[in-house]
Amino acid sequence: MSHQPHCIPIAEARLPLYVGVDLGGTNIKVGVVDDQGLPLSRLSIRTDPKRGPEDGAQRMAEAVGQAIRQAGATRDQVARVGLGSPGTMDIPAGLLLDPPNLPGWMNFPIRARLEKHCGFSVTFENDANAAAYGEFWVGCGRALRSMVMFTLGTGIGCGVIIDDLILQGEHSHGAECGHIIIDHRPDAPLCSCGQTGHLEAYCSAKGVVRRTREALARRPEGTLARAVAAGEELTPLTLAREAEAGDALSLEIVLDTARYLAVGVVNLMHTIDPNGVVLGGAMTFGGHESRLGRRFLEVVREEVHRRAFPVLAERTMIDFATLGGDAGFIGAAGVARLEHSRTKHA
Amino acid sequence: MSHQPHCIPIAEARLPLYVGVDLGGTNIKVGVVDDQGLPLSRLSIRTDPKRGPEDGAQRMAEAVGQAIRQAGATRDQVARVGLGSPGTMDIPAGLLLDPPNLPGWMNFPIRARLEKHCGFSVTFENDANAAAYGEFWVGCGRALRSMVMFTLGTGIGCGVIIDDLILQGEHSHGAECGHIIIDHRPDAPLCSCGQTGHLEAYCSAKGVVRRTREALARRPEGTLARAVAAGEELTPLTLAREAEAGDALSLEIVLDTARYLAVGVVNLMHTIDPNGVVLGGAMTFGGHESRLGRRFLEVVREEVHRRAFPVLAERTMIDFATLGGDAGFIGAAGVARLEHSRTKHA
Repeated sequence: MSHQPHCIPIAEARLPLYVGVDLGGTNIKVGVVDDQGLPLSRLSIRTDPKRGPEDGAQRMAEAVGQAIRQAGATRDQVARVGLGSPGTMDIPAGLLLDPPNLPGWMNFPIRARLEKHCGFSVTFENDANAAAYGEFWVGCGRALRSMVMFTLGTGIGCGVIIDDLILQGEHSHGAECGHIIIDHRPDAPLCSCGQTGHLEAYCSAKGVVRRTREALARRPEGTLARAVAAGEELTPLTLAREAEAGDALSLEIVLDTARYLAVGVVNLMHTIDPNGVVLGGAMTFGGHESRLGRRFLEVVREEVHRRAFPVLAERTMIDFATLGGDAGFIGAAGVARLEHSRTKHA
Repeated sequence: MSHQPHCIPIAEARLPLYVGVDLGGTNIKVGVVDDQGLPLSRLSIRTDPKRGPEDGAQRMAEAVGQAIRQAGATRDQVARVGLGSPGTMDIPAGLLLDPPNLPGWMNFPIRARLEKHCGFSVTFENDANAAAYGEFWVGCGRALRSMVMFTLGTGIGCGVIIDDLILQGEHSHGAECGHIIIDHRPDAPLCSCGQTGHLEAYCSAKGVVRRTREALARRPEGTLARAVAAGEELTPLTLAREAEAGDALSLEIVLDTARYLAVGVVNLMHTIDPNGVVLGGAMTFGGHESRLGRRFLEVVREEVHRRAFPVLAERTMIDFATLGGDAGFIGAAGVARLEHSRTKHA
């Protein structure tokens, strides 16, 4: 697991404070963050999307208040709230459009509603962009001038930061790099978005399970094959467990995932040419804390070395994210801080 | 052919002026451009890379003087010179590193040497970035806030502009999008850079000729096959001529080129999400002026519509460049103007 920083006491915080809200399909994480990016509190509530967006905005606002009390802070120490949310969205308008992970939360003016309920100005951002900004601000990208982050999970999120520019895109679709095409052929694997050949079709949890199923159909041998034949559900966790335990087929699939991911990393290096590429999310096979995670990273780096322009292969940092599950709310607080400082100096 | 704007007289120019230099492997184009992007003069000299970079810098400086005289302008009306050059390079350092198109011009401090010879401050930029900036400033991207340009020729150049940020990258390899991987398989076609599966391996002049050769080997029929069998050299021009004349195989290859290019366009749309994507260079099959060019553009757009996120497919402009061969020197003048205004306000 990733390192989860301790919460600092209010006496040690640098003011002003920001509250970050990381809205997900299952949970909403909320935390108070100081001006240097250190968390003072964190809490999590259920999203319960079925209760609808207005109810969600209300409960988010309550959680913001609770996080402030938990931090031992007062409302007037808080400069702004940041909200990271899954798409689709219209970032400048503060609108959720039709987020697949929040069914029913359509065309909802979430920024304005959260502002109304919590009484603070709210900065709105895509969740993958917010997580990337968190790593850029105080995580493993803190020394970088520009950074690309892939968040590997059910899908593949991506965020691109260049100086203090967060690449939102003209239609709030910037850095949707799970959906770059790495196999142009019509019979390439199907992505969850309905298109073919996308990076996400190979490296997301869904993509990895599909590739594993296909491999098992061709080579029904080894401990993973036996576990699945015995009725165990095939998940990325099962795969990782068997790969760790030495099952050859499982390990091959994990390392092929690293090779596919490297293709996406190279494409971003040849487009953005950042100082660093950061890999986060649940599908990093345990990260630095796990032997399998370290091997995964090693193979990503090897394949990038083989495929990227030599100068970039040599100079671009590639590493795991360090903020773990905190990246979202810390980054959301960070984008609120960015907007606060721009407003102040405008 | 693309529209080549007339040169305006000095009396109509908005001061200050800039001189743009577009350094290529064969020719160097130089022109004076006014503060609104209108050209006052243009001339072209041979690059003659064999004479070496110092001689090249001297002759460029002479051409700068000549372009100023030809414009009827005086040296004190010129604020700065812009130089667009092929890579590899170190943009901040003003260095040519090891440009494949300028053999022998290695590790050469071209910015400083041109400054010395011409007596003006020089802004240094990658040639594809400069061309993109030219189109963004006064070409078909003039109404856009952000833009991606592909320059299709012997290779594939690319430039990305976001507001007034030219994506140079941390190691002067930003927007090297000819070298994004669109086929991850080890047996994918070979790119001129030595790697496999790059966009350039499909859509550059070389890539198109290779694909044509392969197609002719499978289906040696039609007028193109007969012309080649009779000893005619196979070039993109031969292919375009036969496609225009109705040869089915030739037309198929041209339109497949459009489909491959669309994969690159979609990848950039899903990464940058710009207002527009601009296609320029010699490999655009005649552009708007030609029936084949128009059909090529139509198929790029159709394939982008099929593959891109619907909102982007609907809202992203895709069109041919309008400055033709002037984009390089006008864009180089434009980046000089950008730096001049930043220096002025700093």
